[in-house]
Amino acid sequence: MLDSKSSFLKDLFWAAVEAADPLKALARELPESRECPVAVMGAGKGAAQLARAFEELWLGPIRGVVVTRYGFGVNCKHVRVLEAAHPIPDENGVKASSELLNLANSLSEKDLAVVLITGGGSALLPLPPEGMTLGDEILLNEILLRSGAPISAMNAIRKHFSKIKGGRLAVAARPGKLHTLIVSDVPGDDPSQVASGPTVPDASDPDTAFAAIKRYGIELPSKFLDHLSSENARAPTPDDPDFEENSVNVIASCSLSLEAAVGRAKCLGADARILSSAMEGEAREAGRFLAAVAKEVKIANRPFRKPVSILSGGETTVTIKGTGLGGPNTETTLSFALEIEGCDGICALFADTDGIDGSGTNAGAFADGNTAGRIREAGLDPVECLANNDSLKAMEAAGQTFEIGPTGTNVNDFRAVLVD
Amino acid sequence: MLDSKSSFLKDLFWAAVEAADPLKALARELPESRECPVAVMGAGKGAAQLARAFEELWLGPIRGVVVTRYGFGVNCKHVRVLEAAHPIPDENGVKASSELLNLANSLSEKDLAVVLITGGGSALLPLPPEGMTLGDEILLNEILLRSGAPISAMNAIRKHFSKIKGGRLAVAARPGKLHTLIVSDVPGDDPSQVASGPTVPDASDPDTAFAAIKRYGIELPSKFLDHLSSENARAPTPDDPDFEENSVNVIASCSLSLEAAVGRAKCLGADARILSSAMEGEAREAGRFLAAVAKEVKIANRPFRKPVSILSGGETTVTIKGTGLGGPNTETTLSFALEIEGCDGICALFADTDGIDGSGTNAGAFADGNTAGRIREAGLDPVECLANNDSLKAMEAAGQTFEIGPTGTNVNDFRAVLVD
Repeated sequence: MLDSKSSFLKDLFWAAVEAADPLKALARELPESRECPVAVMGAGKGAAQLARAFEELWLGPIRGVVVTRYGFGVNCKHVRVLEAAHPIPDENGVKASSELLNLANSLSEKDLAVVLITGGGSALLPLPPEGMTLGDEILLNEILLRSGAPISAMNAIRKHFSKIKGGRLAVAARPGKLHTLIVSDVPGDDPSQVASGPTVPDASDPDTAFAAIKRYGIELPSKFLDHLSSENARAPTPDDPDFEENSVNVIASCSLSLEAAVGRAKCLGADARILSSAMEGEAREAGRFLAAVAKEVKIANRPFRKPVSILSGGETTVTIKGTGLGGPNTETTLSFALEIEGCDGICALFADTDGIDGSGTNAGAFADGNTAGRIREAGLDPVECLANNDSLKAMEAAGQTFEIGPTGTNVNDFRAVLVD
Repeated sequence: MLDSKSSFLKDLFWAAVEAADPLKALARELPESRECPVAVMGAGKGAAQLARAFEELWLGPIRGVVVTRYGFGVNCKHVRVLEAAHPIPDENGVKASSELLNLANSLSEKDLAVVLITGGGSALLPLPPEGMTLGDEILLNEILLRSGAPISAMNAIRKHFSKIKGGRLAVAARPGKLHTLIVSDVPGDDPSQVASGPTVPDASDPDTAFAAIKRYGIELPSKFLDHLSSENARAPTPDDPDFEENSVNVIASCSLSLEAAVGRAKCLGADARILSSAMEGEAREAGRFLAAVAKEVKIANRPFRKPVSILSGGETTVTIKGTGLGGPNTETTLSFALEIEGCDGICALFADTDGIDGSGTNAGAFADGNTAGRIREAGLDPVECLANNDSLKAMEAAGQTFEIGPTGTNVNDFRAVLVD
């Protein structure tokens, strides 16, 4: 891959990430009067960074607690930053959830709380209902993650197995007033779908959950189904009067970031188009689809005239069938690399804007027409790696992973395909 | 679905099919003087239909032979129609190849031959070189198909293991003049890549073949490598003076058909864009991606400004996990319908241009935001139908299948999504 091309793709990636920068994003959406005392609650991979940015912007007394992923904590002056496990929850997540719930319960009518929510919050907020254990919640999450179901379907199920998700934190906080600020990592930027919406219930009820279980062929042990049938499972819905005085704002999202990447491309004299800000589905199939569009541009100058960058966002999933390691972005990259093998003038960067793709240390990877050949030269069979969900090893063998560390924000996957 | 919209989508479909109609496509590209004697040679799944159409248009005496797949033969008056095995070649393919080669060898300087080539011709033209058997050619093909190498790389290798592929039929035909007419099933419509180009050599030589073997990690038994090193393996290339007086025309293809649909839309005052002429992959995933793009257009007027029709071609596949019935197009439609459920202003027609989707009697189906609801009203669960690969039953229940019967041509699937 030519350095100038990968460096251009990186430029677009960083433009997308910067548009979701916590300080700038918060500054745009905070109330004008910033002198009163405030309680901060938060959860997500970018929650600590958001809390620190909030402390820089708020003028009144601050207390509060946020939970983020191990290694994602940053020092805050007033807000306690807790860390817990992600994507598989642990006891520290349970403790953090309890602290948040306690803080919410302590709020009186005069209190204002700012709730800072980012992607990844769902795993960081385990708090199983009566009769269930953390182990049960972990098992549920594992089953959901392996099912290949989209985030909205997973949330429709898991909000019924929690004391804090699906609006339950907001119920605990009443009569305090909540100002929820969200960095959205979900397609369509529906606030109730980020971090399983602890302060923003969605409209799903147990019937919706049963339908999602059926649709995605999710096999749940009977105790989960029993719980879902019980009155205990029923979560708040948006019609609930508890939420009337609360405000909710999405301060950063995939769409906003893709638009920023288009703007950066324009500054560099290049054309970029957004294909979709909410592309879901199997990661390897997304790779094939994007390769088909890229080849159409390459061969026939349509649907866009080259040179052009084709951008997309949204979160793909991997239905795990093999024993290898890799995240959705490395799997998309490997699949894409096989489809465009031998083509000149097509290169791509697929990466998670939070800096971590799946459970690896990389954000994603680059691909061009030589990538599959480089994997073979390193002694691996790229086709076999893809079949075994071993995309990380393959992309490492090609020397084309994208390693940046946590970015402090998360607006989903960022995909850029440059055709010239 | 509003009748005016489905009728518009049908108009686009028929424009695509008519552009690939054998009679019209041939008529456009035949020499103006049609009275001289002509020899016809041909191979491919549509070769018999093309030969029959040719007989209707040609005024001079006709002799010749074409080979097609078992069950794909149609009666011709003058051209002998042979049938052989596809996709794994058999002895009847060897016999047909020999007959074609004999006919080519019989041509003199004054003779004109029209060569009719369609997709599938490669498997129908087995003719191993000296020292190799049909079994060897089958083995080579299996190894190539398993390698994941693109069609151009496979052709660069297999043209060296044949007495008829990669331009060798044209060499045998000299000093006769060849007029090759091609229905392309390959992305980009490169004539040398359809049916392994019996009359149209590509630029590859044994070195190219060795490079492809290395690049794609293809493990070939030593006798194949020995043959490739021998003088015997050298195939013609486009520079060869043998081909100077021959002509080659692609008369129909997915691209040409999609362009015809764009033209029809324009005549009707509407905008249409080609997303990809070669979209492959899982049918249900194609439905999700097309829904994501359609929703982006609907919500954000990008990457195209609505109202617009988004067109795509290529052949999707269904990995069967359930016990239901349905073809790739009904499965794409059902998946798409679930993704756009409840959205206004999005409707689609996905159908096979040959008129038969998979093993059904329908060509495909229509979908809009009410389709999933109509399936439920008919007492079926659309989610369960999709999980069980039962898309045909679901789309029949919705009353939205597209029934037209065989069209007599095939340029793969046609997909049109109208967003307004």
